[in-house]
Amino acid sequence: MTAGKTGRKRPTISDVAQRAGVTKGAVSRALNSGTGVSSGTRERIRQAAVELGWSPSYAARALNGKPLGTIGLVVRRSPEILDFDAFFPSFLSGIESVLSGEEHATVIRFVPDAQTEAATYERLFGDRFVDGFLVTDLAVDDERPEMLDRLGAPAVVVGAPEGSSDFPTITNDSEEAIRGLVRRFAEAGHRRIAHVQGDPCMLHALQRRRHWEQAVRDLDLEPGPVEYGSYTIVGGAEATERILARNDDERPTAVFYGSDLMAIGGYSVLGEAGLDIPGDVAVAGFDDIPLASFASPPLTTVRSRHRALGSAGARILLDMLKGQAPPLSTMLTGELCLRESSGQPL
Amino acid sequence: MTAGKTGRKRPTISDVAQRAGVTKGAVSRALNSGTGVSSGTRERIRQAAVELGWSPSYAARALNGKPLGTIGLVVRRSPEILDFDAFFPSFLSGIESVLSGEEHATVIRFVPDAQTEAATYERLFGDRFVDGFLVTDLAVDDERPEMLDRLGAPAVVVGAPEGSSDFPTITNDSEEAIRGLVRRFAEAGHRRIAHVQGDPCMLHALQRRRHWEQAVRDLDLEPGPVEYGSYTIVGGAEATERILARNDDERPTAVFYGSDLMAIGGYSVLGEAGLDIPGDVAVAGFDDIPLASFASPPLTTVRSRHRALGSAGARILLDMLKGQAPPLSTMLTGELCLRESSGQPL
Repeated sequence: MTAGKTGRKRPTISDVAQRAGVTKGAVSRALNSGTGVSSGTRERIRQAAVELGWSPSYAARALNGKPLGTIGLVVRRSPEILDFDAFFPSFLSGIESVLSGEEHATVIRFVPDAQTEAATYERLFGDRFVDGFLVTDLAVDDERPEMLDRLGAPAVVVGAPEGSSDFPTITNDSEEAIRGLVRRFAEAGHRRIAHVQGDPCMLHALQRRRHWEQAVRDLDLEPGPVEYGSYTIVGGAEATERILARNDDERPTAVFYGSDLMAIGGYSVLGEAGLDIPGDVAVAGFDDIPLASFASPPLTTVRSRHRALGSAGARILLDMLKGQAPPLSTMLTGELCLRESSGQPL
Repeated sequence: MTAGKTGRKRPTISDVAQRAGVTKGAVSRALNSGTGVSSGTRERIRQAAVELGWSPSYAARALNGKPLGTIGLVVRRSPEILDFDAFFPSFLSGIESVLSGEEHATVIRFVPDAQTEAATYERLFGDRFVDGFLVTDLAVDDERPEMLDRLGAPAVVVGAPEGSSDFPTITNDSEEAIRGLVRRFAEAGHRRIAHVQGDPCMLHALQRRRHWEQAVRDLDLEPGPVEYGSYTIVGGAEATERILARNDDERPTAVFYGSDLMAIGGYSVLGEAGLDIPGDVAVAGFDDIPLASFASPPLTTVRSRHRALGSAGARILLDMLKGQAPPLSTMLTGELCLRESSGQPL
């Protein structure tokens, strides 16, 4: 094994200084301002750096407060939610579709709790490791916008915050699509429509629930039971078991799951209980993951444009970093994808 | 909107110098070596940096060739494969489970082609933006190990390379599990066992195919047809359509899919063709994604430990960066998960 495999020592500013026959201070000056060193010295330093493979560009940008070419994504999620996730890979793919063309990189940190999350934002920005942030998974009473404002960090918030936001936001508006779904259920004769909500602390979970509840009430129906499914397949299955354990007069004939993965968990429990989809229970999900159209029966769902959220968020953030005024609010629109699981309307 | 939202200008080394009443060179010297400046001046510079919120730590480490606290992950995949991927989020979650405890961050770049890939490795390491790399998705005749050796970059290769490797490798060995699966198929009376292979350029796809082929031959059977499914649900569905389009005497009664997602695509096509699983066609996948046990029928599969690959790879790389000699080869073992889709053996 050569030294390279375990980390051959990379050349330092001292090595460059030694090779160029100058002091480290001279290298720093050449690097930081270009002043205070003669052009001959600057050229010797440049030559030495090239020969040694010493590249000061990132460090130089960092020292001078110039853009670094990196954006940060701090994700506070449990590994269980990340495993086989519907949102994250697509969102990241959207970000990267913009960044790769601009030679930018994404710096990702997964954090277990709010305290580590705050420290990580401060450190990534304070240590000038990233230029700005994309903020996702807004929680109820999320403290990040205020914290990022205090840090002076450029950021784009993905998702609709409660109240107004000082940061540009990019939102997936699914209100109309959810309203359309509930109307289809009602037209097919359903009177008890249940909802399986994702993580109760996540704002997007709360918003989907509110849209469902409002749509049901607007049709003069009582909202059916609500269960929580934590956005996972297992969570969706367990929520469905709790729904089926209810008395007959509380049992819904249609269920709107807050994510496709939870609906797939529901499929399994409904199937084991001998219930036909959509004959006995009509089902719909949210996301439109690739699996949705391959499920049996194909799953009706509200399409959310994860990749577009990533690419639009990255684009707006890059524009901000270039000094352009961002649009304060960008809205994408969810879309109702009708498939067999929700049955035919009357 | 305050300046912070669009990127309040962060303090630079010049601002620190001005506030401390010293030259930029003095700040650089204090930062780079601590020599050539009096302790009083150093304290003034430190004080000015604190007041301005100027944090030199990352840049200082970078300039001095010290560990940066970041590892790089360069992923050459099309967005289609990333969308709803079985490997990537779990693998990342494993990496992060190690890095977050060590205050390290992951720098991720998605790249579209081999040329951008090579340039990205060079730039991330040459610009001292990362300390080392985790290398995944080994391709047939992969040029990255040689390139990383040339760069002198520390790296851990995830997956078994062809031939010997100068870099530490961490491998998921699924040979025995695939052999056990094929044996179960044979015991249940299957004589034509097909395989749906993932991306033909990926080494892991080729290795799964070889294990299947060898296991079939060892039982004195002829390997059934092979189709390619690109590791996606759609790809698995299309490969299954091609299998069903074959003449009766070439039609398999069992199919081993190189990934669970491809098997789920197969479920949909087999179901539409009126074929019962496992009655008419026995099915098995690879990965053991959370969905596998919730499919209908539950999917027999070879479990691959994605998260453990990530955590072990990150652990070995961090140990290397601390100067410890890594184990040259670490082996995890795949596991056969028998469920209803493969039928009962005789």
